[in-house]
Order: sequence, then structure tokens, then C-alpha cells
Amino acid sequence: MEPWKTAITHSYENHIWVRGKDITSLMTNATFTDLVFLLYQGRLPSPEERRLLDAILIGVADHGPGSPSAAASRLVATGNRQAPEAAIAAGILAIGDAHAGAGLACMEIIKDGLDLARRESLTIPDAAGRTVDLFLERKERLPGFGHRHHTSDPRTPILFKMASEFKLRKDGIEFMEALEAAVQKKIKPLPINIDGALAAVLHDMGFPPLFGKVMFIVGRVAGLGAQVMEEYTREKPMRIRIPVEYDGPPPEIKD
Amino acid sequence: MEPWKTAITHSYENHIWVRGKDITSLMTNATFTDLVFLLYQGRLPSPEERRLLDAILIGVADHGPGSPSAAASRLVATGNRQAPEAAIAAGILAIGDAHAGAGLACMEIIKDGLDLARRESLTIPDAAGRTVDLFLERKERLPGFGHRHHTSDPRTPILFKMASEFKLRKDGIEFMEALEAAVQKKIKPLPINIDGALAAVLHDMGFPPLFGKVMFIVGRVAGLGAQVMEEYTREKPMRIRIPVEYDGPPPEIKD
Amino acid sequence: MEPWKTAITHSYENHIWVRGKDITSLMTNATFTDLVFLLYQGRLPSPEERRLLDAILIGVADHGPGSPSAAASRLVATGNRQAPEAAIAAGILAIGDAHAGAGLACMEIIKDGLDLARRESLTIPDAAGRTVDLFLERKERLPGFGHRHHTSDPRTPILFKMASEFKLRKDGIEFMEALEAAVQKKIKPLPINIDGALAAVLHDMGFPPLFGKVMFIVGRVAGLGAQVMEEYTREKPMRIRIPVEYDGPPPEIKD
Amino acid sequence: MEPWKTAITHSYENHIWVRGKDITSLMTNATFTDLVFLLYQGRLPSPEERRLLDAILIGVADHGPGSPSAAASRLVATGNRQAPEAAIAAGILAIGDAHAGAGLACMEIIKDGLDLARRESLTIPDAAGRTVDLFLERKERLPGFGHRHHTSDPRTPILFKMASEFKLRKDGIEFMEALEAAVQKKIKPLPINIDGALAAVLHDMGFPPLFGKVMFIVGRVAGLGAQVMEEYTREKPMRIRIPVEYDGPPPEIKD
Repeated sequence: MEPWKTAITHSYENHIWVRGKDITSLMTNATFTDLVFLLYQGRLPSPEERRLLDAILIGVADHGPGSPSAAASRLVATGNRQAPEAAIAAGILAIGDAHAGAGLACMEIIKDGLDLARRESLTIPDAAGRTVDLFLERKERLPGFGHRHHTSDPRTPILFKMASEFKLRKDGIEFMEALEAAVQKKIKPLPINIDGALAAVLHDMGFPPLFGKVMFIVGRVAGLGAQVMEEYTREKPMRIRIPVEYDGPPPEIKD
Repeated sequence: MEPWKTAITHSYENHIWVRGKDITSLMTNATFTDLVFLLYQGRLPSPEERRLLDAILIGVADHGPGSPSAAASRLVATGNRQAPEAAIAAGILAIGDAHAGAGLACMEIIKDGLDLARRESLTIPDAAGRTVDLFLERKERLPGFGHRHHTSDPRTPILFKMASEFKLRKDGIEFMEALEAAVQKKIKPLPINIDGALAAVLHDMGFPPLFGKVMFIVGRVAGLGAQVMEEYTREKPMRIRIPVEYDGPPPEIKD
Repeated sequence: MEPWKTAITHSYENHIWVRGKDITSLMTNATFTDLVFLLYQGRLPSPEERRLLDAILIGVADHGPGSPSAAASRLVATGNRQAPEAAIAAGILAIGDAHAGAGLACMEIIKDGLDLARRESLTIPDAAGRTVDLFLERKERLPGFGHRHHTSDPRTPILFKMASEFKLRKDGIEFMEALEAAVQKKIKPLPINIDGALAAVLHDMGFPPLFGKVMFIVGRVAGLGAQVMEEYTREKPMRIRIPVEYDGPPPEIKD
Repeated sequence: MEPWKTAITHSYENHIWVRGKDITSLMTNATFTDLVFLLYQGRLPSPEERRLLDAILIGVADHGPGSPSAAASRLVATGNRQAPEAAIAAGILAIGDAHAGAGLACMEIIKDGLDLARRESLTIPDAAGRTVDLFLERKERLPGFGHRHHTSDPRTPILFKMASEFKLRKDGIEFMEALEAAVQKKIKPLPINIDGALAAVLHDMGFPPLFGKVMFIVGRVAGLGAQVMEEYTREKPMRIRIPVEYDGPPPEIKD
């Protein structure tokens, strides 16, 4: 078999390098968030970039046991007490398009919108308006706006404020805010949610769209592990009873 | 890399053989249940063995959306609409020790109990009594008895009756029934549930304990797929709201 | 919480019904393949439908340890010896778009092609030609044709022959054969592979496209379980060594 | 349905608290590693505890594409290009007993060994000697020692040195070093590997054994995401060909 090629980690004899940096130096001097940045960008972050990525990872780490990812982890943990990896993996599998997939989708919208602006020499507000029109035309919901629990997400202004203070605010945030204005004008006032906010900030930090989902998984796994351990230590196996109502064909009763 | 060795499937040029049997002959003449038997035992089943394995696979295929496996699949499906494989896999991950793991555990108990009888020249009722004593001593719950929903599981007598009629009843069922008598005498009357019943029958058909869990997965995946497709076609994304009550440290309110 | 509604399985007291049919009758009289059909179509199959679905499930059950699904199961089994559910789930997760997703994709193409024929009053060969043109235009690969191992898939002619003999051949197979002719004319001769064949047959049996993938998972899980059990019984933990070649930035050597 | 209780995250109106701390304060002032510590211990770490946990998470984040977890992620990614969550989840599923499960196992051994010392008033070296004897008696391999790639793991001395400098070295590290001495005397010289090292350090930081596995998952997921993104961006779908050798029953050749 052909060797598998990789540019990520190199390990031989008693050395390990990640993106060319010695693991023992990293362990001594770096933070885990530095390593996440290094793994996906190939360089260590500036202090400001690190703090912004920290804020994003913290922002997505947990949202209680009722989110689909945590609830799936809890349900698996209730039936499978000996394999926490199974419960955590099940939670990750819920991170699809409808649950937290908005980060990835928004990063693609921002990228496409800014490409459109460049290609057709539009202002950012005009490109944002065209983007909203496109979604209205297709009758699709624009991701990154609104939240099923919060009328205004407390995490959004913090991220944007940190990005501004750290001078990391670029055209991604600008586009997202133009999108918010266009949404307000063409649809109704809807706040940028955490998915929209982190998409803009991650775009401005140079991450590709797919990282929007991967980063959510990296952050959320910390919360899923805690949910699973709480289920194991505080609850009995098989404790969850979902109420069910049958509405199919009537049972054929045997004589 | 060393080639991976396998005795299961052989494929070259335009031929595929499973356990030495041509796939096109199998497709023409066999049932899927025959193939399951062939994959795990290396030979095709007798008509009676096939019917008994059919009955077991049918018996475990679905138990409604509220079982941990189906509920985990549903929760993943609610957040992830584009990857049914993720939702089905999450359901399988719930099939651990507490949910449906009893089949595997019972097959080990039957095997150990019959080994004990042989080794110490005990009768099967005596070996069953010793097994119950052992669990009482260790204060562990004996798997295979009782059910959280049914006072008496409708699937158990059918399996035992079919095994008798088909002359496939052997010392596994005998031991399980002796165990039931010993449980009644030493603990309280508890019916053999589906896990205990299928463990006895699978033992008598010559399957190893691990197949108790694998077979459950093979059967249940049919139900999980149906649960996921029903979720996709009848329900909206993110429709599930789990009620949550926080009982941790009080929020530190900022001024 | 609102009860979860389902039309699949109803269970109360000591009874279980699947799609309105008593589980004990099904266990006594039906095959597992009957139950799969019942779960997804809401009725039991005719003997011919059952045999055709058996042939399809058998055809996809295993293709050796080197397919991505089986190899993923093997790798997980090599690191995780105590949770076969984890190893089987990992194999299922590989069943995406590139591996075995062609069944679902082909069922959608057949459905779209026949809709086009009806809508624009085209003959089936004309609609098939238009479909090939569309893929050529978009520079996308048409799924359901060719195989990386077989020059001609032994499973395809069997399925089509059985469907004809059983009088279950309808416009799905007709469209797929028209597609094959159009591919030969407009691209190059390429055989219909198992994914294309089963898509046509499942379409003609009345299954929706998503079942193309779900059915593959239902069949393949039988093989994945066997691959995992073979890994556990014949191989040592952690036995797999993947050859790796690092081609990233040179290690920063510390003095 | 009864509400699910949790002491982890509280969310109402436009506020989110983790373990009682406001998410916006955490995002502004804390690092992601602080949050991991907070989630599992209920309090924020000291600067020294944070740096030690950073070092551990960095140490386990990636070990190249050939480790079972990364290889499973890669294989799933090769067949499933549209669901990175599936590929990452598959990698996590490989983190069982044989791959990286040693951290959990070692934490249990340390806990049991120190309990034994306390209960029977033994010195730590005596308790360590008894622990080695127990494993020799049971003919089981003692986890936490030796590595299949490295003769001496570069990550172990760094962790122990940092723990000493930070005055976080307690009886866990002491016991692990006593175990190393006993292994050398009773078996052969074997270096403490990363699993053994992080088990000792996590024990001394007050984490329960299960966190040994959960922490590995939290750290490794960062590497798995990077492996999956590299597979997507540099490799073609279905590129992996595992060499396979069939050694089962000879194919029955049809006439």
C-alpha cells in the first residue's frame, strides 16, 4: 500500500512535531487553543487571535442537556454505560445541517457574498442585499440569524467587540452586519446569532468554511463529555422515558 | 503494509464469494437471513434454523421511538437532515450494556453455567441455582429477566415454542428455564425477557456470546432506519425540546 | 414534553404491533426480509418482492475488509475491543456519498428522469439522453456505472433477470438500461454496477430514494458485524500499521 | 416527561451560565482550557493547573494519520465527503481500551494502589510492588508503560517536570514512579508512556478516572478534524486501497 501522506504531524524515534514545531516546546509554552490554531492554519496565532479563538470555543462548548447533540449523548449514555466514546460520538453526529451547521453555511455565504462584491464591483451592503434577495427567491431560510431560545444572543456582541478591540475586524464582520441590515429591511429585524457571529469572525481570521463546523465540534466535545459524565454519575441506566403516541394503522387483533 | 487476512468474502475479477459460496447463487436461492447465518457460522442454515433466526431478528427490529437506540437516532436526525448514516449509527451506539446488552451477557451466563455443570458434574438446575447465588452474593442484577414495559414479554414463549417444534431446543434453553425456576425460588417470580430468550436460542443454535449483541444490532438497524425516515418525512428539523431543570451553583449575577 | 408520534410500532401491555401487525404472528410466519419491507412500505411483500429484496440485501452485505466501511470498522475494532457497537457504527458512517451513496443518487436520477419524461412527454430513451447530457454539461460523474474492482459486476444481471422473471420490471429498470445505452453512445461503454442495478429495482418496487442508502446500511451491517468479530477473534489489538510519509514543513530542530 | 436535571449549564432569556459563571465573562477573560477545567471540576483552574492541562491536551491532540483513531477518520472521510461530523465521530469511536484507553486504566490503578496503601498502611513503593505482582499473577499487561513507536516518550518527562515546578506533584506521580521502579525490578525496564504520565498528573489535579478517557477525546478531536480536512482537500474520494488476502474456504466453482 502507498504510504499515506500528511503535512500535519511528524513522528520518528523519540520526537513528535506538529506543523514542524516540537511537541515538547508546544507543551511547555503554548495553550491548547494555540495548538488548534496551529493545526488548522500552520502557524501559531497572535495573542489577539488566540483570545478570539478562545472566546469562540468557549461560546459553543455547552448549551445544556436539551440541545440535540447533548440529548443524543445523554440517550446513548443511558443505554451504554461502559463506552463514553460512543456517547460523545453520538452527540457529534447530531451536529449536522440543522443543529450548528449554520456556522459552516454562514462562512460559505460570507465567502460567496464577498466574491460577488469583488467580481461585480459591488459595495458590501449591495452584495449583502443581493444575498438576501437570493434566499427570498429560493424561499430558503438564511442561516446565522435568530435563535430558538434567545431573543438576542449574548455571545454575538462580545465576539464582535473583541474583534474590533483586537483590530481583527475585517470584511467578514462587515458583510455580516450588512446582511443583518438587509434582513431587517427586506424581512424583519432578526439578531445575528452565535453561528453567524463566529462565522464572520472565523472568516476574518482566515479559516476556510469547513472549519466553521469542525471548530464547533472541537468546542462542543468539551461540553458533551461533561454531559456524559453527569449522566453516568447522577442518573440510573435506562432512566429516560420518552412519551410516545402511536398514530399508525390500528392493530390487527388476533382472535 | 501486510495484507489484511479474511475468511469471509473473496472477490476477484468479476466474482464474489461469501464463505466460499458464489454471491449470484446466494442472491438467486437464499434469503438474507440465510446469509446472516452463513456469515457468522460458515454454513447455510437448515430451514428450521433459518426460521428461528428470522423470528429473533423480527423480534428485536423495532420497539418504538422511545427506546434509547431509536430516540438517539431521532435526536440526531432532528439536527442532521442530510446524513441518515449518522442518525442510524447514533442509535447503534446506544446498544451497550444497559440497553439490549443483556443478550450478550445472558449468552455468557449460559455458557459459564453449562461449563460449571460439566466441570463439577452438576445437574443443570443445580448449576442454575449456583449462578443465581453468585449474582445475589455480588449484589448484581441477573440479566435476561423482567422488562420495564411488559409484565410478560410476548416474544419469549413464541421463541421457545418454535425451538421445541423445530427440535432445536438444547441445553441453553434448558439452563435458562432452570435459571427462571431458581430466580423464582431465590428472588421472586420474574419472566424471561426477549434478551434472555434469544440468548438461550442463539446458544442452542451454536452462536458465540458476542453474536448476541451483533445480532441485535443487525435486527435493530432495520427499525432505526424506519425511525429516521419517519423523522425526516413527518417532522421539522430541531423539533424536539427536552425539558431541563438546572440544579447547579447559582448564577453569579454581574452588576 | 409533547409525545413523539409514530406510525411504525405500537406497544402496550404485553403486545407489540409493527405497522398494525402482531409481532408474534410476524415472528411465527414472516421472514426478516418481510419485516424490512413492512417497516418501509407498510404492507407485507408478495413472494416475488420478498425474493428480490432478499437478493439486494445479500448483494450488498459484504465486499471484504478493504471497502471503506469494513476497513473503518476493522480500525475501530483494533483500538476498541470492548464495544462492537462502536466498530459497527464507524463502518456505517463511511457509507456516505462516495461509498455506496450511488444507490440513493441513482434513485433520484431515475425519479427525476421519469418525471422529466412525463412532464415533457419524452420517450424514456430521450429522457435518459437528456440526463447524460446534463451530467456532461455539469462535468459530474454519473453514479451507478463502472466499478473500481470489477469490469462487469456479477450482481447486476442477476437482479435484472429476477425482476423480469418475477414481473416486477417497470420503468425504473427501463430508464436505467436506456441510461446505459446513452452512456455508451455519449461517453464510453460502462457497465451498470450494483448501485445502479439496485436503484432501478428498488424504484420499481416502490421505495423512495432515501431507502437506497438505508437499505444498503441494513444489508451491510450484517457484513460489518462479521468483519468486527473476525478482527476480535483472529487479530491482536492495535495490529494495523498504516505506512505514513510526512511532507509538511521541516521540523524545527532545537539546539 | 420529567425535566432532565443538570448542574452544568443554565440558560434563560438572554443569559448563559456555565457552572454558575456568565458565558460572556468567560469568553472575555478565560481560555478554552480554563473552560474545560471548569466544566469537569466546577471551578476555574489556577494558572499552574491551566498550563498543565494545556500541556496534556496538546500532548494528545495528534499523532499522525496512522493511529487507529486518525486512520478510522480518514477511511470514513474517503467514503463520506459531506459529513465531517461522521468522520470525526468514527475516529473517536476507536478510542477504546486498546487505543488510548490506558489513561483511564492507569488512573484507576493509581486510585486503587493509593487506596490499598492507605487501607493497609503500606508505603507507596510497597503498594506499587503489590500492584505489579497482581498484574503478573493475572498475566495482564500493565497499562501506561512502553510505546509501540517510541523507546522513550518525549512527552512524559515534560509533564512530570512541569508538575514539579508548578508544585502540583502529589501522590499520583509518586505512585506512578514507584510503579516504574517496580516494573523495572520485577519485569524489565519500561518507560512511562504518555498515557501513564497524564494519568498521574490528572490524578494529582483531582480529576476522576473517567476523565482520563474524556480528556483524551477532547484533545484528540482537534487532530481528527485536521486529519479529516487534509483528507478532503488533498485526496480523492475512495483513494484508499487496503491489500487483502483471502484465506477462507475455497470458492465453490459453478459449472
